[in-house]
Amino acid sequence: MDVERVFEYAREVDTLLIYNASESARDPTFTYVTQTTNGIFEGSALIVGKNGTTIVTSQLEEQAARATGLDVRIFKNSTDFQNILRELLRDVNTVGLNYQSLSLSSYKMLLRIVPDKEFLDVSASILEARKIKQAEELKKIREAAKIGSEVLPDVLDSLKEGMTEYEVASKIVYLMMKNGASGPSFDTIVAFGQNAAMPHYSPGQAKLKRGDFVLMDYGARYMGYCSDITRTVVFGKATEEQKEMYNTVKEAQAAGMKAIREGANGKDVDAAARNIIDSTKYKGRFIHSLGHGVGLEVHDHPALSPTMDFPLKANMVVTVEPGIYVPGYGGVRIEDDVVVTKEGYEKITSAPTYELIEVS
Amino acid sequence: MDVERVFEYAREVDTLLIYNASESARDPTFTYVTQTTNGIFEGSALIVGKNGTTIVTSQLEEQAARATGLDVRIFKNSTDFQNILRELLRDVNTVGLNYQSLSLSSYKMLLRIVPDKEFLDVSASILEARKIKQAEELKKIREAAKIGSEVLPDVLDSLKEGMTEYEVASKIVYLMMKNGASGPSFDTIVAFGQNAAMPHYSPGQAKLKRGDFVLMDYGARYMGYCSDITRTVVFGKATEEQKEMYNTVKEAQAAGMKAIREGANGKDVDAAARNIIDSTKYKGRFIHSLGHGVGLEVHDHPALSPTMDFPLKANMVVTVEPGIYVPGYGGVRIEDDVVVTKEGYEKITSAPTYELIEVS
Repeated sequence: MDVERVFEYAREVDTLLIYNASESARDPTFTYVTQTTNGIFEGSALIVGKNGTTIVTSQLEEQAARATGLDVRIFKNSTDFQNILRELLRDVNTVGLNYQSLSLSSYKMLLRIVPDKEFLDVSASILEARKIKQAEELKKIREAAKIGSEVLPDVLDSLKEGMTEYEVASKIVYLMMKNGASGPSFDTIVAFGQNAAMPHYSPGQAKLKRGDFVLMDYGARYMGYCSDITRTVVFGKATEEQKEMYNTVKEAQAAGMKAIREGANGKDVDAAARNIIDSTKYKGRFIHSLGHGVGLEVHDHPALSPTMDFPLKANMVVTVEPGIYVPGYGGVRIEDDVVVTKEGYEKITSAPTYELIEVS
Repeated sequence: MDVERVFEYAREVDTLLIYNASESARDPTFTYVTQTTNGIFEGSALIVGKNGTTIVTSQLEEQAARATGLDVRIFKNSTDFQNILRELLRDVNTVGLNYQSLSLSSYKMLLRIVPDKEFLDVSASILEARKIKQAEELKKIREAAKIGSEVLPDVLDSLKEGMTEYEVASKIVYLMMKNGASGPSFDTIVAFGQNAAMPHYSPGQAKLKRGDFVLMDYGARYMGYCSDITRTVVFGKATEEQKEMYNTVKEAQAAGMKAIREGANGKDVDAAARNIIDSTKYKGRFIHSLGHGVGLEVHDHPALSPTMDFPLKANMVVTVEPGIYVPGYGGVRIEDDVVVTKEGYEKITSAPTYELIEVS
């Protein structure tokens, strides 16, 4: 991985220390730099210099670490870990840390291990670098988007009256993993009927009925990178109301996408889609941002939201996902992933959205 | 959820502030206190007092927040969020924070929002409270263990020559979700043949061959709580070497379990199992800790390791997972989840381990 990009933004340091406290507190930057998805690397550190990167980890991760081709130092216990860090940082005065990911506890541990260093927050620089995807990253995100898109036809074929939201969610994840995903990129959302009115609904035992909206928000994780797709269909014949909601969202998504290009402002892209919805009887029913970055995290930077005042750059990857939510009735959301280009965008999720799909 | 237990340990504060920065930086304590698994609650806070808890979140999570029955405050933007926090903390001088989960960035944000408060690290108190599971938590962990255990027969039936590690992993996750898991509790490990020598191996395109070890390390997440199971079988007839490895691990696991009871020391439990393996030709091939706590995180506290000097308490839930790893040849690991009791332990993973299972 070309980490020079990070240093282009973080000119104030020439060494970064990335620390993974635990599995649930992993710094995605660890994967960003190593580009490995083997191993868990709990309690492991990366010392990233302009001339090379060293992985400091336990015997448990040795094979995974060696496979990266990076320098590897194996520690036997915490004293050992501390000595290795001190040695690797001996000639370094200023160390860049990722304040956005580093826990307060880990920070205090580092203050004890190397009290003589000056620490600087380089989280903004890391995010800047990570926002613009490199070729090997785009390859992985495209594959994640392909895997997510290609399962949809089989999922729709499998819809049957009386099946539960759980069953649909499990089918989606099964097909994605069968096609090479390491797992879902987040907990799959499948919402029937009025449950679709809750944007972050978790699937339950609700049974599929004729006429229900079926909202599916899911993604694949491939080599550490995420895709994020939402499709909404009607099981059976759609009512005029359902068609109007769907077509309004579809029109809003098209307007949002049309506004995307290098140099376009995040909040203007959001507005392009939001104005369509707010010009209808569904005014105010679009209760979240238009989109967010996708990468090593499913909610990565940048966001496309009313408050996000920044210009898009080529090779950023963002979702475009307008929605309409009517509590007690249902909801519609359509979400695709696009790569920002100089002239516009490239849609990398290929699942069809041309019309409201009526499944029977 | 009875949060008084947290205050029993954290006597120095009467108010906690739990903050969820982003989906990938969620504080499991948020789920611990609310016991909800609806919603994502990015950029949301919990103000936990002795007399009640308030969820401070966005409109996006309103329905999920209201469903908890706790007090809810909805913010429209970050200024709004800051004003609500200031108001809720107006009469509080000392605020407990979870330093183990709170990022340095979030901490600095809180210093800006409420500069007049004294912050104390209550992460140790939270972990102490979370180690010992309450009745409603045990119910969820038992269900996660049941879901994980019950898929095994179907998974073994589905093993066929030439199928990939991915396919087996996807089958495991599919069956768990079909049976009510919200998803896998971690990225499923399926390793064929010599890949089983890497404890944290990630499944790939390797094809199943007769005589291969098949190591499956997986778990279910149910209502936010995790299970963690490992089974190793041989596809076809097992060699004497494979049987010897398996039986050594099985014996080590039995010895470890036998040492578990309230008051037993973590490192003594680890030693009971490790001594069995180190007394054979596999000495030194058991390269990780014997076990770890399981709860809201799949690697929760406490750990059973050579360095972990603490007494087990009733209603802690831990894994017991000895392994033997021979690079270039293969590996065997057997892992079960147990609830610590006054007299011993209760095994809550029911998948069979009685003998080396030869699948054909």
